[in-house]
Amino acid sequence: MTPEQRMAELGLEYREVPVGNGALIPWVQIGDLLYMSGRTPDRTGTVWNGQIGKEYTAEEGYEAAREVAWSQLCAAKSALGELSRIKRVVKVLGMVNSAPGFGDQPKVINGFSELLAEVFGESGRHARSAVGMAGLPGNVPVEVEVIFQVE
Amino acid sequence: MTPEQRMAELGLEYREVPVGNGALIPWVQIGDLLYMSGRTPDRTGTVWNGQIGKEYTAEEGYEAAREVAWSQLCAAKSALGELSRIKRVVKVLGMVNSAPGFGDQPKVINGFSELLAEVFGESGRHARSAVGMAGLPGNVPVEVEVIFQVE
Amino acid sequence: MTPEQRMAELGLEYREVPVGNGALIPWVQIGDLLYMSGRTPDRTGTVWNGQIGKEYTAEEGYEAAREVAWSQLCAAKSALGELSRIKRVVKVLGMVNSAPGFGDQPKVINGFSELLAEVFGESGRHARSAVGMAGLPGNVPVEVEVIFQVE
Repeated sequence: MTPEQRMAELGLEYREVPVGNGALIPWVQIGDLLYMSGRTPDRTGTVWNGQIGKEYTAEEGYEAAREVAWSQLCAAKSALGELSRIKRVVKVLGMVNSAPGFGDQPKVINGFSELLAEVFGESGRHARSAVGMAGLPGNVPVEVEVIFQVE
Repeated sequence: MTPEQRMAELGLEYREVPVGNGALIPWVQIGDLLYMSGRTPDRTGTVWNGQIGKEYTAEEGYEAAREVAWSQLCAAKSALGELSRIKRVVKVLGMVNSAPGFGDQPKVINGFSELLAEVFGESGRHARSAVGMAGLPGNVPVEVEVIFQVE
Repeated sequence: MTPEQRMAELGLEYREVPVGNGALIPWVQIGDLLYMSGRTPDRTGTVWNGQIGKEYTAEEGYEAAREVAWSQLCAAKSALGELSRIKRVVKVLGMVNSAPGFGDQPKVINGFSELLAEVFGESGRHARSAVGMAGLPGNVPVEVEVIFQVE
């Protein structure tokens, strides 16, 4: 099964991510490493606005992080054409917009990590930090950046 | 036009960044990747002390971030001799010292990103995250780390 | 003297870090770069719970960061067999769980950086950012991720 077929099975639709014209672009490939810009939950109609531990629970954050993974998969497919060109998920920086006292960042970012493992299997396992931010763009609850190794 | 000539046109003077003797140094090159340490606004006489969204506006943060880009350009030139050895700006982590509720981190870090695009043109476009920190060294409003690809 | 002998001289015992079965693993090697997951102080019996600038001083944070370095050394040895396979410490992201107003993150993360320099000498010198987080997993005071270059 291809990663695209696994995405379809999970009900995750592909939408192209445009490169745009700005100084900031969604990815840069250097050799076999594809550096992805941080992405936020932007796949569903949900307007995410708030911190984990205040407006959202860790469980809701898990869903937001899953949506971020979906967004990164769409961006990676836009970069590569086929997700099967991803040989390895290398390194994830999972950033959780954290209310004072919130300490369950890993529980939130598992939504990202587990979706990648579902889509890529063994090669979806990765190094990671899951940490608490004081704020994120537009007050979204989660942002994740990731490095892929590609063919 | 060389990057140094563009810097001169923008009124950005070169000052050497010393390597120093400590465990922490301003850059490490591995193969064709030059990893730059996080830098803070240190080019003008301005004493930056405070958070964006409290002591400073996003517009003031933009200026601070521009000053950080200048500082990274000086460090990169100190590392490489000539900035024309930079083939590509790869990945930027823009960290904004954010007062509670501040969510315009991208607007701040654009000060960094746009200066790199002015100096390097097309090869200045990069992957990025722009996120909110609870604190930064010496209470500066912005710190940015960056990876360059070099010849 | 090998890095292991220097660890022994410093009284730092080796304990294996298991890879585990989850989507998140403690390291991923791509080419000659070994990406380590963020680690927290987990080597002594101490229960670290709190922020620097509130529950802990910068000096206590230094000790916590030193413990994190020890933990990363154990993980790296688990990955590589011998620490002498590390050619260079490349890049450190030092994350300090920071109470409002705390701005001495570098002083804290020096505990990490200086231990690596003691163990690896000249090749232990590295690029770094040392920054303040709003929260960390389990409310630990320090988390650090690192990239090593390996043979």
